[in-house]
Amino acid sequence: MTDAANTLTHFDNSGQAHMVDVGDKAHTKRIAIASGVITMQTSTLALIKSGDSKKGDVLGIARIAAIQGSKRTSDLIPLCHPIGLTKVAVTFEIDDKNTSVICTATTETAGQTGVEMEALTAVSVGLLTIYDMCKAVDRGMTISGIKLLEKHGGKSGEWVAP
Amino acid sequence: MTDAANTLTHFDNSGQAHMVDVGDKAHTKRIAIASGVITMQTSTLALIKSGDSKKGDVLGIARIAAIQGSKRTSDLIPLCHPIGLTKVAVTFEIDDKNTSVICTATTETAGQTGVEMEALTAVSVGLLTIYDMCKAVDRGMTISGIKLLEKHGGKSGEWVAP
Amino acid sequence: MTDAANTLTHFDNSGQAHMVDVGDKAHTKRIAIASGVITMQTSTLALIKSGDSKKGDVLGIARIAAIQGSKRTSDLIPLCHPIGLTKVAVTFEIDDKNTSVICTATTETAGQTGVEMEALTAVSVGLLTIYDMCKAVDRGMTISGIKLLEKHGGKSGEWVAP
Amino acid sequence: MTDAANTLTHFDNSGQAHMVDVGDKAHTKRIAIASGVITMQTSTLALIKSGDSKKGDVLGIARIAAIQGSKRTSDLIPLCHPIGLTKVAVTFEIDDKNTSVICTATTETAGQTGVEMEALTAVSVGLLTIYDMCKAVDRGMTISGIKLLEKHGGKSGEWVAP
Amino acid sequence: MTDAANTLTHFDNSGQAHMVDVGDKAHTKRIAIASGVITMQTSTLALIKSGDSKKGDVLGIARIAAIQGSKRTSDLIPLCHPIGLTKVAVTFEIDDKNTSVICTATTETAGQTGVEMEALTAVSVGLLTIYDMCKAVDRGMTISGIKLLEKHGGKSGEWVAP
Amino acid sequence: MTDAANTLTHFDNSGQAHMVDVGDKAHTKRIAIASGVITMQTSTLALIKSGDSKKGDVLGIARIAAIQGSKRTSDLIPLCHPIGLTKVAVTFEIDDKNTSVICTATTETAGQTGVEMEALTAVSVGLLTIYDMCKAVDRGMTISGIKLLEKHGGKSGEWVAP
Repeated sequence: MTDAANTLTHFDNSGQAHMVDVGDKAHTKRIAIASGVITMQTSTLALIKSGDSKKGDVLGIARIAAIQGSKRTSDLIPLCHPIGLTKVAVTFEIDDKNTSVICTATTETAGQTGVEMEALTAVSVGLLTIYDMCKAVDRGMTISGIKLLEKHGGKSGEWVAP
Repeated sequence: MTDAANTLTHFDNSGQAHMVDVGDKAHTKRIAIASGVITMQTSTLALIKSGDSKKGDVLGIARIAAIQGSKRTSDLIPLCHPIGLTKVAVTFEIDDKNTSVICTATTETAGQTGVEMEALTAVSVGLLTIYDMCKAVDRGMTISGIKLLEKHGGKSGEWVAP
Repeated sequence: MTDAANTLTHFDNSGQAHMVDVGDKAHTKRIAIASGVITMQTSTLALIKSGDSKKGDVLGIARIAAIQGSKRTSDLIPLCHPIGLTKVAVTFEIDDKNTSVICTATTETAGQTGVEMEALTAVSVGLLTIYDMCKAVDRGMTISGIKLLEKHGGKSGEWVAP
Repeated sequence: MTDAANTLTHFDNSGQAHMVDVGDKAHTKRIAIASGVITMQTSTLALIKSGDSKKGDVLGIARIAAIQGSKRTSDLIPLCHPIGLTKVAVTFEIDDKNTSVICTATTETAGQTGVEMEALTAVSVGLLTIYDMCKAVDRGMTISGIKLLEKHGGKSGEWVAP
Repeated sequence: MTDAANTLTHFDNSGQAHMVDVGDKAHTKRIAIASGVITMQTSTLALIKSGDSKKGDVLGIARIAAIQGSKRTSDLIPLCHPIGLTKVAVTFEIDDKNTSVICTATTETAGQTGVEMEALTAVSVGLLTIYDMCKAVDRGMTISGIKLLEKHGGKSGEWVAP
Repeated sequence: MTDAANTLTHFDNSGQAHMVDVGDKAHTKRIAIASGVITMQTSTLALIKSGDSKKGDVLGIARIAAIQGSKRTSDLIPLCHPIGLTKVAVTFEIDDKNTSVICTATTETAGQTGVEMEALTAVSVGLLTIYDMCKAVDRGMTISGIKLLEKHGGKSGEWVAP
């Protein structure tokens, strides 16, 4: 029978959660890229665009939060392994047409387990920080489209979002 | 001129980020409710539905992660105040029609600043945990619709998503 | 029917875990005292007794670890509320007859929820630290008798171990 | 003269605490297994046994706390090295005869230092979480028998509790 | 006899470290201001001055690190109480004459214990972050003059550095 | 043109902060030594000198805080990589002539990035802890001279403070 306990690697044979054994997996270079979007009012996006390091640098602060957040992934996600990240890069892109900001994070390690969660966590924390900084003027912002774009390395190898 | 530095409370008069002074705000009961969704393949949702505490309890684990995540909010979001949360509740609802799981978090405090970020962080971490637990079978899952549903208490008072 | 979900306050009416609402509880002075024991070889206890701040102060280090550990309680125990501890005191007593060290922790707050877990966590981390520091010479040490001795304050009031 | 400073590796030649140099130790597979017990009233054990993921899953929550706790070991125990754990597994066994729950944790890494403290910390946090979840009905629960069962790998090699 | 154990409040009557009892102290508004300096080569200071949010915003990043660091004070300093900070503000001033950057932090709470350590920790982490960001071009930077400038509130009241 | 974005490795080509890619750097033994000083009143230094593990061991506590602090470096400094430290040693030296205490920290790893920040963070946290423990009798203490003394290993190789 196919059920969660038999199929999902985060459960052992008896169906109990565990931090899965990766001790025999190869040390390979692993890369993950994830992205997500926060959509807001036109006036809120204008505020973000008006900011710079002298005044109101929303995106600069969100980038730092995203990077720091990715380092906390194994603290936040119960069954994630602690990982020695070798690179975290986070970019923001203004999407005027959809009055939104797109966050993309790239994470890398040379280890025994992938860094998808680290990239997704970076994106989530980056977008939450934008929400936090702008919520006084726009409580209705929505975060969406958080997904893995691609991953490389490891036993399952290459994966690119369709 | 209206720009980020003049409008957003997380910046001071010179436009620099600060953790805004809430020392003179009233201690009132503050409630926030937020939600979000993770969409997946039908077979992945079936796996989640098949789980229970004996085997493969994905949602039970995601709930704990969400609650613990909400307690880490001020660690993750740079300008958030540390808050003595008095309640955190997290629910998951299966949405078969959209092959997705909806996460809703309610947070409360009796303090000088709101708990919206704590609710949004709980939702984000809960959904990320579902992604983590199911990613071995479905890398294409997408997290979306993370937003504030309502807030109560504080100077700005009642707010309900339109 | 009497079962965990109906009886234990950490579960809501539908049996799901939550961080229980303490927002309406009174702010009262709350005290908890807990203790525990680590038992070891006679020679290991002699080593601990020989230490002082100039050389090998095992108990001084364990005390600091216990105090810091108690501040991490809500990070470690999923459904614990974050608490503004107003006092943490930790003592160690040598029990030569049983070749063991007794750790006792007292925690206090003026809040809406008790500090029993903070006292028990302090004791646990203190004893684990002793194990860590002496394990190179005695892997067979055993930690036991971790229990609440008394608590004061709060709705349930006074409790003293029988 | 044999004293703590001369014998315990966590102290340097002058008797001061340090995080001992493991840089020249071999990277080997290291495994540790630890266990411990929480003893309670018969009615409390019945509550725990009545729980499942739909209602009151005490042990499922304690397992997650134990796994997360083991990842925090180097934060909690002052002289522990940060370790890239490759596996953490935690099981609970009901012991009706002694009205208790036995927690066993297995930890693994491929590194330069052992994972005994990670296993012992997992057990301690798992048992503390059971205490937390049941304390409203049974403050007299006692945690005992926390000890290392076996370890493998590293310079000191095999060790099994007598 | 006057010695550390009798005089310093972080030790109890027997000379053991404790987190001192503040439960009976008044809840008053408490403010602390601290500052410190990092001195560097002229060319390094020029690099910092050339940065803005589009390119190389060293000080913006250091400010965020300082604010986040102040929230971690009770994690870092063993006997500090956890505090609900109500304000953290951090400024940087270029001192061309001394080829240095001055960091000043203001912290506030309405509580039972002071926020001096939170201000000093903010300054320290802010300056360490500048060191980190510029160390590739200038390893000889020196951090100095970290001190309390003033404090207000609490039993000991007003204090201003002479 | 030479500016921060072009020169400092913590910024990418477009001048945005990132956690720089170290994945292709060699795994070499890396050592860093840093020091710093806290200057105080003669009577405060006398208090510190009077302490021992039985009564008022200020320096023993500061040493533990410094070691633990160095393990938190990548949490505190935004663009630092998480590192598996293999050694942390911290010493304190009394400087009667200048009524001060000198703190020196040595950190080591076998990895892809240096441990200078870990040594500097250890020193900073150690000195802040001394301030905390003595501030009740001497608010005017000053921390200064925090600097790197030497580093070894890595692409940039040997560096010794002039």
